Amino acid sequence: MNFFFNPDGVAIIGASGNPLRGGYHILNNISGGYKGRIYPVNPKHDSILGMKCYPDISSILCDFDLAIYFIPAIFLPSIIEECAKKNVRGIIIESAGFAEVGEEGKKLQEECTALAGKHNIRLWGPNCMGLLDGHSRHVFSFMYSDLWKTLMVPGNVSMIVQSGMLSAIFLMTILEKGGMGVNKICSIGNKCDVNETDLLEYLIDDPLTGVIGLYAESIVDVRRFMKLCRSTTKPVVVLKGGRSPSGARAAVSHTASLAGNYTIMKHAFKQSGIIPAYDFNELMDILRGFSKTGHSKNNGGTAIISFSGGGGIVTADFLHDFDLPLASLSGETLKSIKEVFPAWMDPSNPVDIWPAVEKNGVETVYTKVVDAVMHDRGVDSLIVHAFSGICDSSVFRPLARLKEELGKPVIAWLVGVGEPYHAFKRDLEDMGIPVFEEMGRGVRFLHSVKQHYSKKPYNPNVSGL
Amino acid sequence: MNFFFNPDGVAIIGASGNPLRGGYHILNNISGGYKGRIYPVNPKHDSILGMKCYPDISSILCDFDLAIYFIPAIFLPSIIEECAKKNVRGIIIESAGFAEVGEEGKKLQEECTALAGKHNIRLWGPNCMGLLDGHSRHVFSFMYSDLWKTLMVPGNVSMIVQSGMLSAIFLMTILEKGGMGVNKICSIGNKCDVNETDLLEYLIDDPLTGVIGLYAESIVDVRRFMKLCRSTTKPVVVLKGGRSPSGARAAVSHTASLAGNYTIMKHAFKQSGIIPAYDFNELMDILRGFSKTGHSKNNGGTAIISFSGGGGIVTADFLHDFDLPLASLSGETLKSIKEVFPAWMDPSNPVDIWPAVEKNGVETVYTKVVDAVMHDRGVDSLIVHAFSGICDSSVFRPLARLKEELGKPVIAWLVGVGEPYHAFKRDLEDMGIPVFEEMGRGVRFLHSVKQHYSKKPYNPNVSGL
Repeated sequence: MNFFFNPDGVAIIGASGNPLRGGYHILNNISGGYKGRIYPVNPKHDSILGMKCYPDISSILCDFDLAIYFIPAIFLPSIIEECAKKNVRGIIIESAGFAEVGEEGKKLQEECTALAGKHNIRLWGPNCMGLLDGHSRHVFSFMYSDLWKTLMVPGNVSMIVQSGMLSAIFLMTILEKGGMGVNKICSIGNKCDVNETDLLEYLIDDPLTGVIGLYAESIVDVRRFMKLCRSTTKPVVVLKGGRSPSGARAAVSHTASLAGNYTIMKHAFKQSGIIPAYDFNELMDILRGFSKTGHSKNNGGTAIISFSGGGGIVTADFLHDFDLPLASLSGETLKSIKEVFPAWMDPSNPVDIWPAVEKNGVETVYTKVVDAVMHDRGVDSLIVHAFSGICDSSVFRPLARLKEELGKPVIAWLVGVGEPYHAFKRDLEDMGIPVFEEMGRGVRFLHSVKQHYSKKPYNPNVSGL
Repeated sequence: MNFFFNPDGVAIIGASGNPLRGGYHILNNISGGYKGRIYPVNPKHDSILGMKCYPDISSILCDFDLAIYFIPAIFLPSIIEECAKKNVRGIIIESAGFAEVGEEGKKLQEECTALAGKHNIRLWGPNCMGLLDGHSRHVFSFMYSDLWKTLMVPGNVSMIVQSGMLSAIFLMTILEKGGMGVNKICSIGNKCDVNETDLLEYLIDDPLTGVIGLYAESIVDVRRFMKLCRSTTKPVVVLKGGRSPSGARAAVSHTASLAGNYTIMKHAFKQSGIIPAYDFNELMDILRGFSKTGHSKNNGGTAIISFSGGGGIVTADFLHDFDLPLASLSGETLKSIKEVFPAWMDPSNPVDIWPAVEKNGVETVYTKVVDAVMHDRGVDSLIVHAFSGICDSSVFRPLARLKEELGKPVIAWLVGVGEPYHAFKRDLEDMGIPVFEEMGRGVRFLHSVKQHYSKKPYNPNVSGL
């Protein structure tokens, strides 16, 4: 599968000089990152974007690994034949007009799949947005935005997305919200040949991938998929579209997918250690969390450090909802943190630090309380609340170290306004502390982390990136 | 109660010239909005912020309605006596050090409550952040930030918050995220006298309040509270802290609250038409949604207009989770929208408009599809997805009108990056279409809206603001 991601030569069938067309953006995106040979193919042009343009595939003199197909569906069989002569190994078909448009398209898709199989060419798509790689900066997609050039950060999160538009939406969300580095985003559409299981296998072996997210309307080879999930220590987070009867019906017309019985699938997911997600941002948030959290123990409870009594209480309620124990702080810990509290207050977990902050200042208190609580043997994880109006991220530098030293995951809930808030958030995430806007989501993530790492050993790929 | 919100004269007991002290911010906040007489009281200063400062209450020559108390707890009894002589009607006690600090504080609090009762003075707090009014711009609080001066928009959302810090957090979230206009935010702390039920009654009668949100750790007078909720057509959304045993224990030390049995309370909430919330942003999102949604029928199903097949499918899954029917579009509607779709595609609900957009452009398609779907008799609500990369908010102007004309609530899920995204979001919200970042949250809101207005008639206070 590596020739899809790192091909030796790429032809763009349907390259265009018109910025209103996808064929323009494919070429523009490829030339913005890919350093290998690029062959635009379009009989109407001699050159596009300063590159020589070929009237057809046979005019390209050298062999090449990959073709990106963006012309009407009907020409695909002849293109496959021409590609075979150039020893092409894979074709990414980004055009629509195949199985999703009815019987005729389905027949064409099947015909092409068989033909490509005969020539030993792998087909990716059709009806998809191709792929994108945050490390190599290979963007083999017609997506219309240049924003990836400035906003995309390389990281350890890879995704497999069975919806062209959703893969763009996920990417936009990552670019807008930040906090998450991207490895490979794979939009697989109708998956006539390359499917989610093939890519899962590839990503499990990929050393740059630490955590894998999936949006799927169907899973073609369920047994192999589940077996791969059971075999890997990398977290696999799956948002399944078509859980409901009406959603499943819609999936048939979207990507010609048979969504399957979700009740059965949910059970199989659980047995295979798959982490479920239900909403788009939830999938993003859990992936982001895992991208920063490489290990966790499950041998104690969660401590909460809050600057708001109410915040601590609601967080404790969520821990209860997810069956996560609230840590009992040891006498030693309580004695140590008591030093920074006013006489009238005996701190307990959740630790409402505000009365201490009023007495001793925010830095002294966070430093003292964080250190004592993180070292408490009964504490295996920490939820910390912060407010950009009263401090900046520097008070959490010791926490970032402790988190790694002690192997205890930390998540943050942050409140604030404007640039100080956004800077604080960026800093915390850079320190490996994921920030959750939704407290319930954060607790849900912590539950997933503890579940995952209690069953699967620490995965060095995750925190190393 | 109106003297708390619109007093004739305010004294600040503990006004300070030091910007590191709350007593400075109370004065600064009041003078930034309140147009009446202001009396700073502090024996150490002759003037603060250019205002004459009084050594004690007896030095103030005129009577005044309201005192804001921000000196150590121990002095409160004598201040109550002095206030009585000036015919003070209410004291907002923002200092801590009362029932939340143990037996001694509890005794002091009870003593003060009795004393004030004797003098017919109402007490607000203690251990709270006071109040804020988006319309009058009265900010009777020690909150440290001036941001309200530039970011606060008057609106129809009022809140009662039993946590000083959380009321600030809610406000910061509103200021940071926008999209919601503020009426009154009431931080009630230990509620030794004025409690959530008193304020609920006041806000139900308040013509500027259209929707009421509450964070409560306990409800003092449950029967009266529930009766008020049953009696009003205004949506009342409640986030109850201390739902769990551990959360309830934490509530005792936070605001000396007995959280009560949530299982019983949950049932009573439902019977009284209270809309529950569980997370901070969820409370905000539901309030924001209601602030823009004054009516709804419950006589059909929900239509989904999505530019992503996957987006439509997941949204349909959420509708199923919340038992909201997916509308069956009429033959007439389908025939009408079919005109803008390519021949191979027979649209159905969810309406995946992307193939139509590729053929006919985004404006033509949204206009056609929105109009047909909104007029369909089987449709009582609409979820619309949009992407700031392909259009701006102007295509939704007709929808904003249709929504009001037809009395069908509309919510949006919006994707995009940077300023075009934020501008799009602001515009939609200004048009009365709440934007949800979390699709599941949006569907949850729609469920609440349909539930609420099917039981309670349309409330003109909501959409009129």
